[in-house]
Amino acid sequence: MTEIKKQAQASLDSLYRIFTVPEAPDSTLGKIDISISQNLAGFLQEHIVAAERDLDLIEKDFSNPFIPQQPSFVSDQIDFVLDKVVAQSVHIASPSFVGHMASALPYFMLPLSRIMTALNQNLVKVETSKAFTPLERQVIGMIHHLIYERDSDFYGKWMHDPAHAIGSFCSGGTIANLTALWAARNAVLPASKDFAGIAQEGLAAGLQHYDYRALAVLVSERGHYSLGKAADILGIGRRNLVAIETDANNRIRPDLLAQRCDDLRRAGTKVMAIVGVAGSSETGSIDPLNAIADIAQERGIHFHVDSAWGGPTLFSRTHRRLLAGIERADSVTIDAHKQLYVPMGAGLCVFKRPETLASVEHHAEYIIRKGSKDLGSHSVEGSRPGMAVLVHAGLHIIARSGYELLIDEGIAKAKAFAEIIKASSDFELISEPELNILTYRYLPEAAKALLASNDSAQRSASNMILNRITRLIQKTQRALGLSFVSRTQLNPQRYDRDPVVVFRVVLANPLTTMAILQNVLEEQRRIVKDPAVQEEIRSLSSLQGE
Amino acid sequence: MTEIKKQAQASLDSLYRIFTVPEAPDSTLGKIDISISQNLAGFLQEHIVAAERDLDLIEKDFSNPFIPQQPSFVSDQIDFVLDKVVAQSVHIASPSFVGHMASALPYFMLPLSRIMTALNQNLVKVETSKAFTPLERQVIGMIHHLIYERDSDFYGKWMHDPAHAIGSFCSGGTIANLTALWAARNAVLPASKDFAGIAQEGLAAGLQHYDYRALAVLVSERGHYSLGKAADILGIGRRNLVAIETDANNRIRPDLLAQRCDDLRRAGTKVMAIVGVAGSSETGSIDPLNAIADIAQERGIHFHVDSAWGGPTLFSRTHRRLLAGIERADSVTIDAHKQLYVPMGAGLCVFKRPETLASVEHHAEYIIRKGSKDLGSHSVEGSRPGMAVLVHAGLHIIARSGYELLIDEGIAKAKAFAEIIKASSDFELISEPELNILTYRYLPEAAKALLASNDSAQRSASNMILNRITRLIQKTQRALGLSFVSRTQLNPQRYDRDPVVVFRVVLANPLTTMAILQNVLEEQRRIVKDPAVQEEIRSLSSLQGE
Repeated sequence: MTEIKKQAQASLDSLYRIFTVPEAPDSTLGKIDISISQNLAGFLQEHIVAAERDLDLIEKDFSNPFIPQQPSFVSDQIDFVLDKVVAQSVHIASPSFVGHMASALPYFMLPLSRIMTALNQNLVKVETSKAFTPLERQVIGMIHHLIYERDSDFYGKWMHDPAHAIGSFCSGGTIANLTALWAARNAVLPASKDFAGIAQEGLAAGLQHYDYRALAVLVSERGHYSLGKAADILGIGRRNLVAIETDANNRIRPDLLAQRCDDLRRAGTKVMAIVGVAGSSETGSIDPLNAIADIAQERGIHFHVDSAWGGPTLFSRTHRRLLAGIERADSVTIDAHKQLYVPMGAGLCVFKRPETLASVEHHAEYIIRKGSKDLGSHSVEGSRPGMAVLVHAGLHIIARSGYELLIDEGIAKAKAFAEIIKASSDFELISEPELNILTYRYLPEAAKALLASNDSAQRSASNMILNRITRLIQKTQRALGLSFVSRTQLNPQRYDRDPVVVFRVVLANPLTTMAILQNVLEEQRRIVKDPAVQEEIRSLSSLQGE
Repeated sequence: MTEIKKQAQASLDSLYRIFTVPEAPDSTLGKIDISISQNLAGFLQEHIVAAERDLDLIEKDFSNPFIPQQPSFVSDQIDFVLDKVVAQSVHIASPSFVGHMASALPYFMLPLSRIMTALNQNLVKVETSKAFTPLERQVIGMIHHLIYERDSDFYGKWMHDPAHAIGSFCSGGTIANLTALWAARNAVLPASKDFAGIAQEGLAAGLQHYDYRALAVLVSERGHYSLGKAADILGIGRRNLVAIETDANNRIRPDLLAQRCDDLRRAGTKVMAIVGVAGSSETGSIDPLNAIADIAQERGIHFHVDSAWGGPTLFSRTHRRLLAGIERADSVTIDAHKQLYVPMGAGLCVFKRPETLASVEHHAEYIIRKGSKDLGSHSVEGSRPGMAVLVHAGLHIIARSGYELLIDEGIAKAKAFAEIIKASSDFELISEPELNILTYRYLPEAAKALLASNDSAQRSASNMILNRITRLIQKTQRALGLSFVSRTQLNPQRYDRDPVVVFRVVLANPLTTMAILQNVLEEQRRIVKDPAVQEEIRSLSSLQGE
């Protein structure tokens, strides 16, 4: 061999090695691997740096846009990942981080995820997923049953039927909501004489054929932002996602909903779906689903429930009544990476009737052929990993009784925390926890009289200052990295729908204790002493002097 | 404590344990975990059963739609997963499975995936992903540079700019193509005087405002099925995804493309995008991208390249010329879980101009706020895992030179295999490998004269029988489980565009050798001796007698 040939052969050999030779247990990567499997909490605690670095600083480590010509050593890349990525990531699993919708993971999810990655199945078709196809169909069936409680005959007939799908597994609630609205949209503009259906001819032709001015989707003003995105993607238009006002408890007002449906119909707009919210992202509030179901049913409108967050409340015999009416929905979204405690990237949408998803069915020559059981024929996504195996494991290892405990504990903790806030003179509860989410804010003494005044301009001015205070406290607390609450903006009735910025607490991590929650408040009280916050408080007092 | 309270406390304790206590190294799960990290290939070989069980039989293990009330032991669930899921999954990593677009994984992807899962970041916003946000933006920048080769000033300015995105990371090519067409669609119906833009007002209002009859997307008949799905989802309609005929080498005919653009325009249809295929899923063929770019540029049409498969060919100094013109595309799709050797669930779409994605930008109150660097403001998906860290690792550990070797070796192997097929009297090469994909079929002696005859009906009848033979052989080979080629259906010019079913071979697994490929043919020759195949061959002979 010439020298050049020898070199080429050597690179080839070393390349093949990375496909065949595993990490040695005493290599950097091997050690991390063992440390994660034997003490996950310890690994996260040790490697994630609490105090927040400025994002601009972090970016410096990710500023090179050029793919290197020569390979790095695995150990160098791992050092980089530990020092620059893991160290500066967010400690999602921390029990004092109560602002995220993700939580600590049950330990078995990690080794099971590794099995999933090792198998690297692609669930788009049976040929690349075999047993994962019936497994995913079973998981869809189980969630369908959680909601609709049909009998074994129903599932015996439909769960594995190649020509039907009673749900679609996907990467999360956004795609699940998109799938539901896609199916609903296509169903209101179906094929008929002289019209091949919207899927074939497009939205504009469909509206023209059926003589509709536009399509509309109705949802409360607490509806998730993914619905607006779906309205854009599906060509409906964000303006035609109509936000219905909520009551003092952030629940949709059925009277206004019914009224709006009828107004739109009279104006020539076809209401293609009403979306009920079952656990809003911001306040955890649940719409009166039976009242919405009545309105939808009377008018023959597709009724979708977005229970990405709240769906698993159905496991709780105590609290499931909050979702009464969900079983009347035509489609329901549930996220598995939220309250089913599965790692990021798993959600699903289930459909009451096995026929509904037919409106989006599609096939191709080399894949998802007609008559096959290929899951890709009813999904927005194409290639997808086998996350369903993790949901399957959760449903068996945690089971109904385990999820019930998790739900009940979370709600109990939220209610107890709400009581603590209400009993504290320096905090104000903004939304009561219906589920395990609540919102509140810091309320300095100086603000109280101002907010109680009859002068609405003065009330608004006070709220604006309070909003700055809330933002300051939240950002500082996040930057310190010891605990975390998120923040959002609401328009509470009690303040004439003024924008009010709030702390948002999500109590899904079973390791969060009441003592930790007390500490969250204590830390906020300490932050209040910061000069920047004090200055805002002084500006409140000066407002009072005016 | 009462007995009931004690029991409740005990369940709670055992529940908390699954969130805190890791698997013991000598538990079932612990042992599997170690076995996968120390010998992945051995684990797969040992646990995946080669011979295919009938799907109906497999389904019996996944037939219970009821979520169990009581928790299972982790060990019982793991036994189930091993016996019923892993055993009956597809050996994607096997070097003799040459029909899949996924391959063996570099070993470092597994422990890195575990780190990713352990961190459980959510890339929708900085607050739940911190360093993963700049990391993903860097990965997008690197792929952007691979294609567009802009200078460091460009990336210094745009890569981390909060108000812009030069690409969108997602779960795979389907969502990437959807993202690109969504952006293109919104850009042709922008806001103007008296019109708030399609995102706000919807597709029908947009068409009316701009006085277009419809929108259309043009792509060769080899375009991926995800484009049809995108045309449906986006409200364009599948009929308006116009398939342009290909030449003898499965490449789009630019003359017909240009003609069709102009015909559509004259008919009042706005061509919103032309899609070039760079590595078709079925044949690996690449459209003449420069010719398409000329046509698109002259007419001011968005030019998208779907190089989900072929994109990484750019790493090869020898073969990158095949993609000449890709740098003129307005947007480009690349799958990371294909030829970047990342586990399932990673793809991206990059955009030439930092402004293009603005047409789909969106914000909300509690998330992806304006001015933030949150990645969710330009993505179809919401919550997403940190797969970008795996792409980042591949780009550094394998690097340009490693990917170049992988690409060059795959193409060389495909060309060598094509030569073997051409030299075999009993096989027929149907599509020459331009990249590392080729198609062929078994061709019994009896068929040769028939296919050469002047009687087109006889030729078609022969092809129909040959199609049954190809299907039979492919299904039998898959069921035996020793090796795997996939199959699809083409319409080759040499057979007057008769449907011709073919074996499809994808040579991306670096562990596949020429000896393995010889064995694939040998096994097919053995399957030909099966009575069912022989009967089809006899029916060919009788056709000859007619």
